[in-house]
Amino acid sequence: MEARITLLPGDGVGPEVVHEAAACLTAVAKAYGHRFHLEEALIGGAAVDATGDPLPAATLARCQASQAVLLGAVGGPAWDRHPRDQRPESGLLRLRRSLGLYANLRPVKVHPALEDASPLRPEVTHGTDLMIVRELGGGLYFGEPRSFSDERAVNTLPYTRTEIEQVARVAFELAASRRRRLVSVDKANVLETSRLWRQIVDELAPSYPTVQVTHAYVDSFAMALITRPRDFDVVLTENLFGDILSDEAAVLAGSLGLLPSASLGGPVGLYEPIHGSAPDIAGRDAANPIGTILSAAMLLRHSLRLETEALALEAAVDRVLKGGHGTSDLGGLKHQHGTRALGERIREAI
Amino acid sequence: MEARITLLPGDGVGPEVVHEAAACLTAVAKAYGHRFHLEEALIGGAAVDATGDPLPAATLARCQASQAVLLGAVGGPAWDRHPRDQRPESGLLRLRRSLGLYANLRPVKVHPALEDASPLRPEVTHGTDLMIVRELGGGLYFGEPRSFSDERAVNTLPYTRTEIEQVARVAFELAASRRRRLVSVDKANVLETSRLWRQIVDELAPSYPTVQVTHAYVDSFAMALITRPRDFDVVLTENLFGDILSDEAAVLAGSLGLLPSASLGGPVGLYEPIHGSAPDIAGRDAANPIGTILSAAMLLRHSLRLETEALALEAAVDRVLKGGHGTSDLGGLKHQHGTRALGERIREAI
Ligand SMILES: CC(C)[C@H](C(=O)O)[C@@H](O)C(=O)O
Ligand SMILES: CC(C)[C@H](C(=O)O)[C@@H](O)C(=O)O
Repeated sequence: MEARITLLPGDGVGPEVVHEAAACLTAVAKAYGHRFHLEEALIGGAAVDATGDPLPAATLARCQASQAVLLGAVGGPAWDRHPRDQRPESGLLRLRRSLGLYANLRPVKVHPALEDASPLRPEVTHGTDLMIVRELGGGLYFGEPRSFSDERAVNTLPYTRTEIEQVARVAFELAASRRRRLVSVDKANVLETSRLWRQIVDELAPSYPTVQVTHAYVDSFAMALITRPRDFDVVLTENLFGDILSDEAAVLAGSLGLLPSASLGGPVGLYEPIHGSAPDIAGRDAANPIGTILSAAMLLRHSLRLETEALALEAAVDRVLKGGHGTSDLGGLKHQHGTRALGERIREAI
Repeated sequence: MEARITLLPGDGVGPEVVHEAAACLTAVAKAYGHRFHLEEALIGGAAVDATGDPLPAATLARCQASQAVLLGAVGGPAWDRHPRDQRPESGLLRLRRSLGLYANLRPVKVHPALEDASPLRPEVTHGTDLMIVRELGGGLYFGEPRSFSDERAVNTLPYTRTEIEQVARVAFELAASRRRRLVSVDKANVLETSRLWRQIVDELAPSYPTVQVTHAYVDSFAMALITRPRDFDVVLTENLFGDILSDEAAVLAGSLGLLPSASLGGPVGLYEPIHGSAPDIAGRDAANPIGTILSAAMLLRHSLRLETEALALEAAVDRVLKGGHGTSDLGGLKHQHGTRALGERIREAI
C-alpha cells in the first residue's frame, strides 16, 4: 500500500527517537512491499523557535493531509517561561484536539527479559498486560473558563455525555477483544464529573455483555496498579487521571522509554511514546527508541490496518530485548547500546 | 495534662481501628500521668443512618470543643446512591473545611521488618522516609461552580494565593526540620492553577534558605515516587494530586493499613489513617490498626505537643513489627494477628 505519514520530531530527545522509528517504518515498507511517504514538520519548542507558534498552520495542514502522525516529544526548560499559547505543550494539545483525538491507548506489557530492570519483584509483575484508555480531548486540559492572576488561578473540569460515551465505547470494544475485563477509574465519591462518568459506563455495560465491568477510585487504584497489576486488562479513565496513571504504570514495564501510545478518534491517528522530551539526555544518543518504535507499530495496526506488519515490528523489538540488548535506562540488560545502534538492531531483526 | 479528644469511628473498619488507637491513647495517658477525655461522635454513613446528615451539628460542635479529633474511615457501597450532601464522604470534607484544616501530613516510612511484604525490591525502598504534604481545603474537592446533569457535569479547580502560601509554608518548615529537601508536584505545563502554585513556591523559597526546592510534574513524579523514593524528603502538592500520590506511596510501606495522617491548620487537629472503610473486611477483626495508632501518635505530637509520648507510641509499633507481628495485610510477617490482638500487643509494648 501507499501511505503518507507525518513525522513530528519535536524537542529534546524527540528527533533521535523519531529518526529510529521512521527508519523502522521504512524497513517494514521494504520488507512487505509498501510505499510510505515520510515527511517531517515542526512542532513544540522547535516550532516556537522557528515560527513563534508551537503548532504552525503548515504543520497542522500536513498532519491533516496524511494518514497518520508519528511524534517524538515536546517541551523543555527553554520554553518554561513562555506565555501559555507559545508553550510547546499547548501545540501538542491543540494538535490532539484539532485532529479530534479522544481516545489515547497506552498498552503496558512486562517483558520477561526486563523483569530485572524493574523496581518491582517479578512475582508481582510477571505476565502483566494491560491497556490504559485515557480520555484525551476533554477535562481539565481544555476546560473553560481558565484564568491566571497573581492572586488566583482557575481551571475547569467539564465532561459531557458524548465525550464520556465515545471514549468508553473504545474501551469496551478493546476489552471485548482482549481478556474481557474493564476497570473504570474515577473519583465519584467527590467529583460530579466522575459520577457522570460512572453512570455512563454503567449504562453502556449491557451493550457489551461479555465484558465484566468494575469501578475503582483513582487513589486506591494508584496503589492497586502496582500491587496487583495482573488483575487488570483494560483501564478506562479521564484525561488527567490517565496522564498520571500511565506514567505510574511505566514502573511495571521497567522504563518510561519502553511505552508507546496511539491517539484515535478522528480520521488521522497520532502516535507517540509516553515519555517526555528528556532535555538532560538530548543529543547524546542515550534515549530509548523503543517507545517510539512500538508507537510506529501501533500506527501500522490502527491507522494503516497492517496487523501482520505491526506484529513483525513488535516481534523484532521482543527478540532484541530477549537477546539482552537495550539502552542504559534498562539497567538489567547485558548489552547496552546507544539510541542509533539499538534502532539498527531492531531493524535488522524485522 | 488534661485533654479532650473526640473519636469519630465512622464506617466499615473505622470503629475497630479507632477502638484500638483509643486504647493506646489511654495506655499512654496512664503511663505518663495524663488525663485524656475520649468521647465518641457520629460521622459518615453511620451518622446518615442515624440522623440523615453525615456531619451532624452535634458532632461538629463536639469536635470544635476538643483539642483533637481521631477518625476511622467513612463511606461504603451502602451510601453510594445517596445524593451528594448525604454521602459519608461529604461529611468528612465538611469537617475538614469547618475545622479550617488546610495541611494534610502523610508520612511514609519503610519499616525494615516489612520489606518482604512489599511488591518492591528492598534495594529500592530501604530507608525511605518521606512526608507528603497535601493541600486539604481547596481545589477540585470544594471548587464552585459544580454541577451534575445527565448530559454534562462540571467541577472547578480554583486556587488562591493564600491557600497555596499557607500549605507551602507548612511544607517548607517541615523540610527545614528534616532533610531540607522539598519537591513541589504540579502540572504547570498544562494547568494555570499549577503555574500559580509553582510561582508561589518559588517566591517563598528565599525565606527558607536551607531548603533545596525542586518542581516535578505529577505524571512523571508518579513514576519517580516508586522508582527512587529515597530521593525525596518533603513532597508538597495540591488536594487531588496528594490524594492519589499518598495512596500510591503506600506501596512503598507495604500496606495502606500502616499509614497515618494529620490534618492541621486550625485550632483543632484531625487525625486519620489514610486507608478507607474497607467494607469487605469490616467487623471481622481483620483490619490493620497501625495506621490509626500512628495517627494517634501524630495527635500526641501535633495537637498535644507531647513529643516524648508520641515517640513512645511509635517505638511500641516499631518493636511489635520488628518482632514479626502484624495483621494479614502484611504478608511477609511471621506472626499474624487480628485487629484487637495486634492493638493489645502494641499497648503492652508502650
Ligand atoms: C506534554 C503533556 C502536555 C502531555 C500530557 O500531559 O498529556 C504528556 O505528559 C503526555 O502524557 O502525553
Ligand atoms: C474519602 C475521601 C473523601 C478522602 C479524600 O479523597 O480526601 C480519602 O480518599 C482520603 O484520602 O482521605
